Amino acid sequence: MFHRSAIIAFLLLPGALWAQECKRARDYGIHIGVMQPGALNAITDVRGVKVGHTTLVKGDSIRTGVTAIVPAEGNLFQQKVPAAIFVGNGFGKLAGITQVNELGNLETPIVLTNTLSVPVAMQAVAGLTLAEKGNENVRSVNAVVGETNDGYLNDIRGRHVTVADVNAAILSAAAGKVTEGNVGAGTGTICFGFKGGIGTASRKLPASLGGYTVGVIVQSNFGGVLSIDGAPVGKELGKFDFSNHLLNNVDGSCMIVVATDAPIDHRNLMRLASRAILGLGKTGGIASNGSGDYVIAFSTAEELRIPHSGNQSHQTVTLLQNEAMSPLFLAAIEATEEAIINSLFVATSAKGRNGNAVEALPLQQVLPILQKYNRLQP
Amino acid sequence: MFHRSAIIAFLLLPGALWAQECKRARDYGIHIGVMQPGALNAITDVRGVKVGHTTLVKGDSIRTGVTAIVPAEGNLFQQKVPAAIFVGNGFGKLAGITQVNELGNLETPIVLTNTLSVPVAMQAVAGLTLAEKGNENVRSVNAVVGETNDGYLNDIRGRHVTVADVNAAILSAAAGKVTEGNVGAGTGTICFGFKGGIGTASRKLPASLGGYTVGVIVQSNFGGVLSIDGAPVGKELGKFDFSNHLLNNVDGSCMIVVATDAPIDHRNLMRLASRAILGLGKTGGIASNGSGDYVIAFSTAEELRIPHSGNQSHQTVTLLQNEAMSPLFLAAIEATEEAIINSLFVATSAKGRNGNAVEALPLQQVLPILQKYNRLQP
Amino acid sequence: MFHRSAIIAFLLLPGALWAQECKRARDYGIHIGVMQPGALNAITDVRGVKVGHTTLVKGDSIRTGVTAIVPAEGNLFQQKVPAAIFVGNGFGKLAGITQVNELGNLETPIVLTNTLSVPVAMQAVAGLTLAEKGNENVRSVNAVVGETNDGYLNDIRGRHVTVADVNAAILSAAAGKVTEGNVGAGTGTICFGFKGGIGTASRKLPASLGGYTVGVIVQSNFGGVLSIDGAPVGKELGKFDFSNHLLNNVDGSCMIVVATDAPIDHRNLMRLASRAILGLGKTGGIASNGSGDYVIAFSTAEELRIPHSGNQSHQTVTLLQNEAMSPLFLAAIEATEEAIINSLFVATSAKGRNGNAVEALPLQQVLPILQKYNRLQP
Amino acid sequence: MFHRSAIIAFLLLPGALWAQECKRARDYGIHIGVMQPGALNAITDVRGVKVGHTTLVKGDSIRTGVTAIVPAEGNLFQQKVPAAIFVGNGFGKLAGITQVNELGNLETPIVLTNTLSVPVAMQAVAGLTLAEKGNENVRSVNAVVGETNDGYLNDIRGRHVTVADVNAAILSAAAGKVTEGNVGAGTGTICFGFKGGIGTASRKLPASLGGYTVGVIVQSNFGGVLSIDGAPVGKELGKFDFSNHLLNNVDGSCMIVVATDAPIDHRNLMRLASRAILGLGKTGGIASNGSGDYVIAFSTAEELRIPHSGNQSHQTVTLLQNEAMSPLFLAAIEATEEAIINSLFVATSAKGRNGNAVEALPLQQVLPILQKYNRLQP
Repeated sequence: MFHRSAIIAFLLLPGALWAQECKRARDYGIHIGVMQPGALNAITDVRGVKVGHTTLVKGDSIRTGVTAIVPAEGNLFQQKVPAAIFVGNGFGKLAGITQVNELGNLETPIVLTNTLSVPVAMQAVAGLTLAEKGNENVRSVNAVVGETNDGYLNDIRGRHVTVADVNAAILSAAAGKVTEGNVGAGTGTICFGFKGGIGTASRKLPASLGGYTVGVIVQSNFGGVLSIDGAPVGKELGKFDFSNHLLNNVDGSCMIVVATDAPIDHRNLMRLASRAILGLGKTGGIASNGSGDYVIAFSTAEELRIPHSGNQSHQTVTLLQNEAMSPLFLAAIEATEEAIINSLFVATSAKGRNGNAVEALPLQQVLPILQKYNRLQP
Repeated sequence: MFHRSAIIAFLLLPGALWAQECKRARDYGIHIGVMQPGALNAITDVRGVKVGHTTLVKGDSIRTGVTAIVPAEGNLFQQKVPAAIFVGNGFGKLAGITQVNELGNLETPIVLTNTLSVPVAMQAVAGLTLAEKGNENVRSVNAVVGETNDGYLNDIRGRHVTVADVNAAILSAAAGKVTEGNVGAGTGTICFGFKGGIGTASRKLPASLGGYTVGVIVQSNFGGVLSIDGAPVGKELGKFDFSNHLLNNVDGSCMIVVATDAPIDHRNLMRLASRAILGLGKTGGIASNGSGDYVIAFSTAEELRIPHSGNQSHQTVTLLQNEAMSPLFLAAIEATEEAIINSLFVATSAKGRNGNAVEALPLQQVLPILQKYNRLQP
Repeated sequence: MFHRSAIIAFLLLPGALWAQECKRARDYGIHIGVMQPGALNAITDVRGVKVGHTTLVKGDSIRTGVTAIVPAEGNLFQQKVPAAIFVGNGFGKLAGITQVNELGNLETPIVLTNTLSVPVAMQAVAGLTLAEKGNENVRSVNAVVGETNDGYLNDIRGRHVTVADVNAAILSAAAGKVTEGNVGAGTGTICFGFKGGIGTASRKLPASLGGYTVGVIVQSNFGGVLSIDGAPVGKELGKFDFSNHLLNNVDGSCMIVVATDAPIDHRNLMRLASRAILGLGKTGGIASNGSGDYVIAFSTAEELRIPHSGNQSHQTVTLLQNEAMSPLFLAAIEATEEAIINSLFVATSAKGRNGNAVEALPLQQVLPILQKYNRLQP
Repeated sequence: MFHRSAIIAFLLLPGALWAQECKRARDYGIHIGVMQPGALNAITDVRGVKVGHTTLVKGDSIRTGVTAIVPAEGNLFQQKVPAAIFVGNGFGKLAGITQVNELGNLETPIVLTNTLSVPVAMQAVAGLTLAEKGNENVRSVNAVVGETNDGYLNDIRGRHVTVADVNAAILSAAAGKVTEGNVGAGTGTICFGFKGGIGTASRKLPASLGGYTVGVIVQSNFGGVLSIDGAPVGKELGKFDFSNHLLNNVDGSCMIVVATDAPIDHRNLMRLASRAILGLGKTGGIASNGSGDYVIAFSTAEELRIPHSGNQSHQTVTLLQNEAMSPLFLAAIEATEEAIINSLFVATSAKGRNGNAVEALPLQQVLPILQKYNRLQP
């Protein structure tokens, strides 16, 4: 809690209560980009999207978990959603990519977890799908599971995530405020050398640009040269990749999930997904060799839901034209950047496996840097 | 005329003993293509490649299994092999694709199984890798697992494959003759409406073309209009997709694994992999909407093994030039075609879930058709 | 004309007139596949598609030309058509691919020509588009131009195709019967060591499968081991790649254009395009290292035309579902196979640059082979 | 404080002489990133790389040109260089992509020009290649030509670039300092609403990270929300896309060429190329719908030169391992960001077609903004 008081000192404000309530980047006066966030500044601003976490902090060395993103209401397998998965850097174990990109849709919740728990998460997703009412004849399930490697803090080799843990994350998924930081799949992750984790943000287009919402959630676990809203924080702190002119271990990964209510199909969702990587770049991420950086994008537009068993050979849909995509691209970039920064602001210092410890972003140093670079708005 | 009389014997007599000895396509006088097979006419003609099966036939409804292909000797994680994965049609659950294609290598055995057992197979592959001597610090494993859906004959929803079953397939993998047909991952598969399964074949280039070997193994489980060495068998039998002018269930999938000792890296392995799909096409496969058709190609060239932990920032390799690839392409096409046909010739009629039954390729009808189209060589 | 009489002798029929009228594969009793062709068995069976040729045969060494495929009526730039381009083997100079695949549409005619005339063809396509009524403000045109290399017969280095030649092909494009063989872009091409050229074919689905038409046109200029409707013609003739166990020049290319009236968008058009390569494989093509094998697919469905200047931000379309694609896949495979074979049957022996000569498919030898393998239907 | 006073001089005085000497971003005290530039801070810091321009400013409405990047010494066709082309957004007319990515190499100079002059540039590149000594038997040339659309300032429909103009750019290409701004292919381009153009930059890794150089050159012609070294310049100026909440024309494009002397092949060059897009993102680019954003990357490593006519079927090369790529990724990101910013700093106001005018980046406003955000170093 050291840095909390430092923050308070810095801002010359009283009150621990305030500090607890005011933890996301925007609460410190950091306003990334030019577009407005949605009501919650979270992926759940996209109506129908739900998020759930299972956080595993046990003993000295279990620091991991599961985050589930349920893209839409109802039986997802029977009423799939349009989707696309973009590979920023493919050094990762993401499951489900080829079917999503071949058929253009998603038929399960998206689960994020640690690298070695992908199989158990797939097992759980398939199990829930098979068991869901209406799916009695289902014999094929494309579980979409992403991951990053939390093996510095977490005894990842122990593979402690269970099917029950994954089920719990999915079944507890809810609309509304999303818990960020050291939670769920972000429990043990590291970002720019600081404690990373789950972060979220959103953008709502003005009505003149369609009025659509783009929401993003990330599991941040990567390196580079940290920049916060353009301020060279990593450089000022002297903490960035290759800063000692040796090949540091800059690896890690970033899972990014982008939701929108805009009516767009696979092709334009893929384009939208690829823009999210630019948001990662703006935080100073470099998609290093060892980073598995993936973006999963989906549309919640009701009319675009794809029936599993085609009694109908055709489907009529109203889609956004290519020309109307650009504002959504900007929204995805901004929301991704802010979601990553949120993951850093909310995450707290953590200790785990082998006594390994990772400090939270040192706000008592970072906020003055942001002030120096004039990035804090009143 | 030995074979002809043998066929006659087969057609007229019980001849079970003979039938057991003479079951692959080539044994009937079918000589696909213009290149010569290797000694075993199997993927194991590529030195270092080993294959193992676990076959699960239990009670009325378990008809499934596991086939493992171990690409090379030694600790695969510490000494990876160059590899590429080509997607013919992405309606499948193949695990491991993005890392193989990003880094250009394979660090585990390849496992084939049924659709819903991919997670357990990944769990097993990771487990064996973590436990292998020398891998004590490994915290990330890219398990490559392919599948096809055997849910017509097998109680696939029961997910009966266990970690032990997968381990057994990997640990029993051996060089030499490869068992084909209703075995391992092919235990419950269906191909062109007949019993499919595991099939293998190989081609050895003449010394003037480099002398390299290309070996293929398939898990056949797809539809279309069967052609055997060019003879229109499906049409003659009146058994092919859309033959009743309705949208039949033509779906299914084909996993194809291509091994070669030619020294080629990821880019040319990807090109080689894409040619294997032409071999599938020559059997009459159409890569239908529901078919997950994937080709995993790797090189066993010793000098190309890629060390996991780079003490060395550079590696010196001698690679085949683009211009020398074409004979390997033809070899991959021929071996894939023959491997699929072998899977059909060797597979035997099977009965499973719900009393569902699938007949083997009816040789008593097929051989006369092949004779009619002059495809049986003495 | 030697082989004409040979054919006549072989078929024991009189009459040169008959021989002239009966030149396509189907006219000899070769019935590829299980689906029915459209009325013309040509790409022009897809309503709205027009084809035009400019053939350049001048002096001793100019043997080249241009073939234009106009996908639909009206101003294509202002009313684009959904499209996709699949790369079978990318050793070619196809222009326009990234925009077609990014935006999912085609805004010009498709032009085929020789390798070194791609620039002049692009210049012509752009020029006609800029000059078209209604396009006065157009400042960007994505010309789609494919090619194969006719440099054995043609003085390709001379770059003899002019803008006027390309314009003539486009402006003369017509519905109805398509001229095949040594015409347009096929004037100087070679296929399996014989004279190749332009070929076309089509398939019409029965009403129960949607009733759609798939039409294909090819510019054949590649090698491999020729198979005609499954009969091993190349092998029987002893004329195939690597037949002398040396690395022959098997290179060449194949441009394939697939048209359909089925209402499918970019994603499913890409899937359709990839199936056409299986048809190439069935003729014995191997997509050799030096072959630039591309498939351009488009839909003529009127409702799917995409307006250039989006006064409307949305478009309502009725699309075929994934599950209904498989019959179209089979249609594309069959039509591609037959189009290539047609190009061989119709092409005639030619002589060109440096006295280089290429024989037509020797029907007097080929038809007996087809009879031997029982591929000629009465 | 020298620069500060210099800026003041610039802001208060005519100071043309000074202005000419001190025009690139770094000259104003803007130090992008954490790595050091090469000696020239230009793509030509990569030994062997040469750049040439042809600038066409004629009458009221011709404002265009050609920029040629010659990747290496000698006959490029006979001794190709490893290369890869990454598509950030494919709404462009880039020529040559499929062959580069299939074969993994580049066999001509890279030419940048305007959208409608791609064909003439291809014609020129092919012509020079055919005419080059040693290429007498060449009958196929893969010209790599990129473009952006300068149609606001330039009479692009007039297609004023000639073969001679392109030849001049190629033949005048030289090592050493690279002219930036309104020159060559950047003569008529617009970036973030200001005059864009050609920009270049480089990074040299420390010896401990391999000592390699990465050089970048860009043709900047795109939009978004301008950020200069993290400072929100576009936002402060109130000049950015969608700033009036309407769908502005944000389109445009960016061509990026990345050169390195690191010994890396196609696969890792593709990875390197994809990182350059992150540098574009850091300037505030959003890869809008209408933007054709491409990155062409090549290696100049002498040992990796690929002989055209394979007398040798094999080639021995020493390649950088995957693990050593990350510093190169960071270098590419930083150099791309700085190259784009340089293009803006060096470009000057221009007037063209229809009296259309584009202002240069207004330094008198921008430098104070950079000062406000503390981005000017003494």
